[in-house]
Amino acid sequence: MQALLWDGHDLTFNSAYRTPKTDAQTALIKVHLAGICSTDLQIFKGYMGFRGVPGHEFVGSVSEGPRELVGKRVVGEINFGCGQCDYCRRDLGRHCPNRRVMGILNADGAFAEYLSVPVENLHRVPESISDEESVFTEPLAAAFEILTQIQLDPGDEVLVLGDGKLGNLCAQALRLTGAKITALGKHAEKLALIKKAGVRTIQLDDWQPRLFDVVIEATGSASGLELALSAVRPRGTLILKSTIAGNHQVSLAPIVINEINVIGSRCGLFPDALDALTTKRVSVTPLIEKIYPLQNGIEAIAHAQSSSARKILLRPFDE
Amino acid sequence: MQALLWDGHDLTFNSAYRTPKTDAQTALIKVHLAGICSTDLQIFKGYMGFRGVPGHEFVGSVSEGPRELVGKRVVGEINFGCGQCDYCRRDLGRHCPNRRVMGILNADGAFAEYLSVPVENLHRVPESISDEESVFTEPLAAAFEILTQIQLDPGDEVLVLGDGKLGNLCAQALRLTGAKITALGKHAEKLALIKKAGVRTIQLDDWQPRLFDVVIEATGSASGLELALSAVRPRGTLILKSTIAGNHQVSLAPIVINEINVIGSRCGLFPDALDALTTKRVSVTPLIEKIYPLQNGIEAIAHAQSSSARKILLRPFDE
Repeated sequence: MQALLWDGHDLTFNSAYRTPKTDAQTALIKVHLAGICSTDLQIFKGYMGFRGVPGHEFVGSVSEGPRELVGKRVVGEINFGCGQCDYCRRDLGRHCPNRRVMGILNADGAFAEYLSVPVENLHRVPESISDEESVFTEPLAAAFEILTQIQLDPGDEVLVLGDGKLGNLCAQALRLTGAKITALGKHAEKLALIKKAGVRTIQLDDWQPRLFDVVIEATGSASGLELALSAVRPRGTLILKSTIAGNHQVSLAPIVINEINVIGSRCGLFPDALDALTTKRVSVTPLIEKIYPLQNGIEAIAHAQSSSARKILLRPFDE
Repeated sequence: MQALLWDGHDLTFNSAYRTPKTDAQTALIKVHLAGICSTDLQIFKGYMGFRGVPGHEFVGSVSEGPRELVGKRVVGEINFGCGQCDYCRRDLGRHCPNRRVMGILNADGAFAEYLSVPVENLHRVPESISDEESVFTEPLAAAFEILTQIQLDPGDEVLVLGDGKLGNLCAQALRLTGAKITALGKHAEKLALIKKAGVRTIQLDDWQPRLFDVVIEATGSASGLELALSAVRPRGTLILKSTIAGNHQVSLAPIVINEINVIGSRCGLFPDALDALTTKRVSVTPLIEKIYPLQNGIEAIAHAQSSSARKILLRPFDE
């Protein structure tokens, strides 16, 4: 089958990669669309030491698997837990110490014609959601993850730092709580998209320092952290969303002095995201920049690396 | 009066420093004992840009002030809030944006014969607690502060990193919850003190990496942070207790990947600490290394800078 392949040094297009094998616990998925995420770009800088087929955002249809699922459209949670440990038993398979992670850790991902996914990770996609919408389920679930970690009240002032895909989705997800969301970013066009979704926006050039109850760091770059820390009120909360390879120079004294609560936040469960897509409470398709055929994947990745790019999607099969 | 004075470059002994003035809201305190804290040593490296009389741990007696307090023994909370703002109204004057902080920020401290403290910051010291015990109220309150920020349950596994004064007090305070406390440190003698207080100890050379529900970083040095992060379980909590000047090289990816909750923790309110001292549920006098007369304060500070030193106290007046 066709697939993109990362060998630790180079990304190549491979037209004869082995089609994944499945067993009673896994299904073979025919990929309809796959999304390129900032984490993928970090992988190409060495993050996680991954080798194999990248890609962890997809929508597809079941090609082989349980009879009731064959032919159905699905999305899939990306952490493949052992199913036995304390974390797996508490629905926290995303923290299973023996997990594999689709396209990130010891498991081939979705930048291919087919991929194999544990059946228990799959979620049916309702008819009313298009492929172009449902491919956003994974990053949208990562945005909703924040609400499993902290409680937002209607009066709370929240700053979302970063106007990229993740910043946009976080702003939209948190807005549903009734909290007062402000998005701060560098790019006028991306901020305009967030504003269209009903969120107050500020361009970085117009930023007047002030304090928020909660700050979401979703810039995807190390430089956002200092600004983020400076914008959290004493005893407030800073959510770290960006996974960035390498070390940072940080002064931690403000965290101690202001007794700030810094919470790392990663993947989420899919039901909340699918529900928000089904009920059209979030708007994701305006985030799509371009859809490339899989065979032009190298060009697509290069496009995704441009800081002005919105979401780049890969389509393995002609429609 | 006699006082130690930090001018931003040098610490000097001054035998004719101005005696503090008081007003209706403040009391003049005759210092019986003052404790030298790691934060003082950080101040002499530039922390907070402080100038004036350092020192924020003391026990004394009221020399001028409200009639019912004159002659009584007192300890004092170190944050002088404005009394008007949202933080002050919620008993969080330690986060008042306009606060002064005794011996740390815009307020002379306790390394002197007398100091001035807002009356509302003072707490009477019960007869049953000696001066040598009550001078530990402030650092012990900082240890109890952790329990206002997180809830510890009896089964929880807690690692206290650092066998210094703060590590010792944190281990003793947290132990009262019934959680399983382990203290990890470098110094056999200091660990022996912690063990005597009923806490399990491990010497750093014997450390076998494992995961804890909660880790308290109380080493007072930047190097402790990496070990601390590596010892927190996914979705566990890391409490930062050390205020350290300058930047650190840190990889923040583990915080995001493991969704760790990092909480800065600083000063606490005094009642819990005074109660624990009164009921003898903690043991603090074994932590005393030596008591110096104030006029030998420079020598005392040098002694406190030795990594093997326990608590150094200053006594302004002969007994």
